[in-house]
Amino acid sequence: MIRVASSTDRRVDDFRDLARADRRPDRPGGRGLVIAEGTVVVRRMLASPYPIRAVLGVQRRVTELADDLDGLDVPVYVACADTMAEIVGFHLNRGVLAVAGRACLPDAEAVAGQASTVAVLEGVGDHENLGALFRNVAALGVDGVLLGPGCSDPLYRRSVRVSMGTVLRVPFAPLAPWPDGVDLLRGYGFHVAALTPSAGSQDLAGFAGRGDRRVALLLGSEGHGLSREAIEAADTAVHIPMADGVDSLNIATAGAVAFYELTSRVAHDPDRGGVRG
Amino acid sequence: MIRVASSTDRRVDDFRDLARADRRPDRPGGRGLVIAEGTVVVRRMLASPYPIRAVLGVQRRVTELADDLDGLDVPVYVACADTMAEIVGFHLNRGVLAVAGRACLPDAEAVAGQASTVAVLEGVGDHENLGALFRNVAALGVDGVLLGPGCSDPLYRRSVRVSMGTVLRVPFAPLAPWPDGVDLLRGYGFHVAALTPSAGSQDLAGFAGRGDRRVALLLGSEGHGLSREAIEAADTAVHIPMADGVDSLNIATAGAVAFYELTSRVAHDPDRGGVRG
Repeated sequence: MIRVASSTDRRVDDFRDLARADRRPDRPGGRGLVIAEGTVVVRRMLASPYPIRAVLGVQRRVTELADDLDGLDVPVYVACADTMAEIVGFHLNRGVLAVAGRACLPDAEAVAGQASTVAVLEGVGDHENLGALFRNVAALGVDGVLLGPGCSDPLYRRSVRVSMGTVLRVPFAPLAPWPDGVDLLRGYGFHVAALTPSAGSQDLAGFAGRGDRRVALLLGSEGHGLSREAIEAADTAVHIPMADGVDSLNIATAGAVAFYELTSRVAHDPDRGGVRG
Repeated sequence: MIRVASSTDRRVDDFRDLARADRRPDRPGGRGLVIAEGTVVVRRMLASPYPIRAVLGVQRRVTELADDLDGLDVPVYVACADTMAEIVGFHLNRGVLAVAGRACLPDAEAVAGQASTVAVLEGVGDHENLGALFRNVAALGVDGVLLGPGCSDPLYRRSVRVSMGTVLRVPFAPLAPWPDGVDLLRGYGFHVAALTPSAGSQDLAGFAGRGDRRVALLLGSEGHGLSREAIEAADTAVHIPMADGVDSLNIATAGAVAFYELTSRVAHDPDRGGVRG
């Protein structure tokens, strides 16, 4: 444990000026360090394959993490809240950060090969929606995420935070070319379904009732939804019945409802593999 | 249509310094004007029973709303973006605001009497979670919301915005005393279910499969969940099966999954009333 008394200490440069980095977010497959904020997410980073470089926190938070940090062979910096705010560039409610390098990411084949249910995203450029989607994917037993064009970087700081650190655990990979890359999924036996309010699409419950053993669910951005090309590349279009018009649910919430419906079928079918706990 | 050239114009005092009002949010049943932001939410306010007092917008947004404002007997103020920012106290992306008085709210009996499914909230003090819950309630065909202790004001500006204006349409009322007020719901034939990850609770799908004609779903705050008293006051405790521990879903997202499961049953049972579109 190393005390940091001055915000200009060069040893904590990995944590410097994080809000400024917000203005140049990376893209999937991008560069840049991965930042975890708060004890819950730092714990998830410590348990992940991402190679930890350092931890920085106020004494109280570092003490809370003592068991997790025990035996860890990286510097653990302790600073007072004001010094930490000067380093980071803003006041940090959560009081502790960890920084890691980027792990070697799997490719789309590796993600698909291990999965019963995958979420395939197009145009999800909003970091908070992307993070929330990963949180819902993790909670509801979806096995992986594939990223089409226009998605932002799941390892970007705000996505990591909103995802509650689940981006560090859920396998994800870019999918290209788009949308023809979904053929790869069909090759693994996936039924490819596009979630869209388009007329003529099938009711989600009815679709889940088909009992496909492997389902890839395509989800579009909140503003524009899936592109026509993506919908046409899917085997089926499905919708969530809604009382209140087409833009009624946030994209991450619509995803959660669909993931629940699809993975519940897994959980209730003993013949089918799945990761539900 | 009245041009406002100066930010000190007293006629637009209803719209003044809105961010400052953020520091003194009202409580349910509270005082204070209701603010709608953006064309979508302003339209919902115009279609609501809330008595509109005035509209303030930049020319482009007011022009977009021309049909909706036609015949409306209240002042419509037009200002440039900079003047509007000075009045409101921050730069307003959405470019148009409407302000209304508080409509006379229904009581819990009026909300319950008309409903097949109600959400009953305890301790949802976060304005964004509360707004998101209303958005999900509206989208997924839940008929009303009852507010136990510790909930914030659904008509507070940020809740109105996050709810996409649905707080202006979904009936809500305070429920007291707490938790004994749920007896009122039983009197109307509701089965009272507490959504909670507690051990021994029933799986959501299994519970929905019971096919109760009227269901009141109790939801607690994201941080602490439902109080022990609230869980004990319910007829049944139910949980969403999760792969990732007990705090895995945001409260509004957990609500959406549960609302979907419960109201899907309504939609698929022709003998049972419901508001699904």
